[in-house]
Amino acid sequence: MSFIAPRFSPPERILMGPGPSDVPRRVLNAMAAPTLGHLDPDYLAIMDEVRDFLRKVFRTSNEMTMAIPGTGSAGMEATVVNLVEPGDEVIVCVNGVFGGRLKDVAERAGAKVLALEAPWGETIEPAAIASALEQQPGTKAVMIVHAETSTGAHQSLEEISKLVHDAGALLLVDAVTSLAGVPLDLDALKIDACYSGTQKCLSCPPGLAPVSFSAAAVDKIMSRKTKVQSWYLDVSMLKSYWGQERVYHHTAPINMTYALREALAIVLEEGLESRWARHQLNHEALRAGLEAIGLKYIPKHSLASLNAIHVPDGVDEAGVRKRLLTDYGIEIGAGLGPFKGKAWRIGLMGASSTRRHVMTVLAALEDLLKVSGGSAAASDVYAKQ
Amino acid sequence: MSFIAPRFSPPERILMGPGPSDVPRRVLNAMAAPTLGHLDPDYLAIMDEVRDFLRKVFRTSNEMTMAIPGTGSAGMEATVVNLVEPGDEVIVCVNGVFGGRLKDVAERAGAKVLALEAPWGETIEPAAIASALEQQPGTKAVMIVHAETSTGAHQSLEEISKLVHDAGALLLVDAVTSLAGVPLDLDALKIDACYSGTQKCLSCPPGLAPVSFSAAAVDKIMSRKTKVQSWYLDVSMLKSYWGQERVYHHTAPINMTYALREALAIVLEEGLESRWARHQLNHEALRAGLEAIGLKYIPKHSLASLNAIHVPDGVDEAGVRKRLLTDYGIEIGAGLGPFKGKAWRIGLMGASSTRRHVMTVLAALEDLLKVSGGSAAASDVYAKQ
Repeated sequence: MSFIAPRFSPPERILMGPGPSDVPRRVLNAMAAPTLGHLDPDYLAIMDEVRDFLRKVFRTSNEMTMAIPGTGSAGMEATVVNLVEPGDEVIVCVNGVFGGRLKDVAERAGAKVLALEAPWGETIEPAAIASALEQQPGTKAVMIVHAETSTGAHQSLEEISKLVHDAGALLLVDAVTSLAGVPLDLDALKIDACYSGTQKCLSCPPGLAPVSFSAAAVDKIMSRKTKVQSWYLDVSMLKSYWGQERVYHHTAPINMTYALREALAIVLEEGLESRWARHQLNHEALRAGLEAIGLKYIPKHSLASLNAIHVPDGVDEAGVRKRLLTDYGIEIGAGLGPFKGKAWRIGLMGASSTRRHVMTVLAALEDLLKVSGGSAAASDVYAKQ
Repeated sequence: MSFIAPRFSPPERILMGPGPSDVPRRVLNAMAAPTLGHLDPDYLAIMDEVRDFLRKVFRTSNEMTMAIPGTGSAGMEATVVNLVEPGDEVIVCVNGVFGGRLKDVAERAGAKVLALEAPWGETIEPAAIASALEQQPGTKAVMIVHAETSTGAHQSLEEISKLVHDAGALLLVDAVTSLAGVPLDLDALKIDACYSGTQKCLSCPPGLAPVSFSAAAVDKIMSRKTKVQSWYLDVSMLKSYWGQERVYHHTAPINMTYALREALAIVLEEGLESRWARHQLNHEALRAGLEAIGLKYIPKHSLASLNAIHVPDGVDEAGVRKRLLTDYGIEIGAGLGPFKGKAWRIGLMGASSTRRHVMTVLAALEDLLKVSGGSAAASDVYAKQ
């Protein structure tokens, strides 16, 4: 009669999809520390430490830097709904799933959206931004994805940032798959609102969204004429909890914050430049290996953290992915949207960006695709190092 | 030059505030299991198990039962923004902080809100609901708090549910502080939308919000003329991820879901009736003890899970709370709103509802307030058991 639940014992995987990435045991152990109250002085000190660490990882001095209590998409929604008031004209760059999602979120917030599209896999050209800004001179904000997780495209931001600010608009950037894996410097790039997720290059479980707002963005938020449509994501209230006032807003995800604290500590102990260099090296090795076995990259400018490749004709896309999971315990990602059934996405993020991961996935692909030469090509890249 | 973060080691507390409650080591260990991908077949099986367990704990057969990827307030926002379309007439019952928050969230969603107020600490009378429904005959939904965490008031729902449904409206219930601690039966009460939090009577860390929607509520959602204003909380899309389609929406908070799975397993292993009875007994013992040392309850109808009491004249409210924390490691809650500086809130939720917790907090209060007789009175209650 009495109920006994089966023993809980999820399998161990090698996570090389588009996130989550492998989470170090040190982070999982920190997450399992005893829960504190969300207003406990010891917890507030942890929040301060997380904010300090986040500023260093974002490379910003922005006062309004914090972790939104939700996954990366909550970070997207938080930045958009706070910056946008109904009727605001914005430009949204769409060259993949996440640009498309930004457009949807902005429209739900009542924005008048000019969608600037580029083919999936390509990036947005500064000239296209310039002409969109001319076309819509009242533009309040430009929204763009730094690391398009659906295509692996790596967007350059320097020139675009200058154009956007010269036009008097704010720049909002999706850095979900780039933060702590690919060079990003919020203050140097003058980014006004940026969001990320914990489960990518930070190698923390999913559940929090690091965000940061520039002083100009905060000015826009604090001078809104209408309330932010989301109570949960209202930055003017979150500000009072993360700031000196410590006004109760929501019950923070305490143990997730522990995990993020520890993940950020690991990033800072490695050093951002070293971490970026590690991601770049492992990406180059994997790329050499994949190309040696005849696989072609989708984006012209690939992220170091995510490798999106075309599935060769005649190969069973889902079948190979399934065998990677069952025979090797390796997770890679499928294609989304127009790439459904036609692409694989191999992540090399955070703790999953290692020589061991690169050589293991190449060995597995050589085995399953009955090809050779990939491992040797990757090995050559490491040897030249 | 190189950075080494200080060792992460939060202190162990006894959590007897308005949540979070003590989290069993079994739950913390489950949360620290290796992270899986959000589309991994083994993770999808865990989601199915969580959904099954949640249905049992909510006592419902509702298909649309799941965990929203945010804390309790995200659950509130998810239920409200999905059910409400701009211009919809609703009644919101306000007798504390969380009723007030419901009103704010409903207004941000564009609802025309008739606020039905009662003094803080009191509950809403069915007669008041009846007259509000007469006053606003087009009412689409009535929103009410089952367990008002700011006052400890326990709202009865039977009669109100009948009135609401007779008027053709939907019933939305906040069960953040009641689920799994205080009797609640969604199907018997015909509740159409219900949300809770993980960190109260479920004794899981904060970070997820269990929700459930009746078939009538899902009909209303699926026949909306406008998009839900929140992309992140759009139930029509969450439905496709939790349902058979498994359409990627967001990256689920994987490890938090592990914790919730284990916390729900513990609830079901204890049995809901036994758990409710345990909460009731410990509440009665604490109440006898508190009243024996001269402390008075704020609500007429107190929750078993939360004991809100007036701070006696001349007692330093914050000083006593601080000494409980520093000398005893016990967290209790302060008053909110009109009770700021005037109330204490002592939680007996989930794993924090034990004879040991009751006797320890009474002993500590007797020590700090220089009174006696509380422990003996509580002891008598247990002896009669």
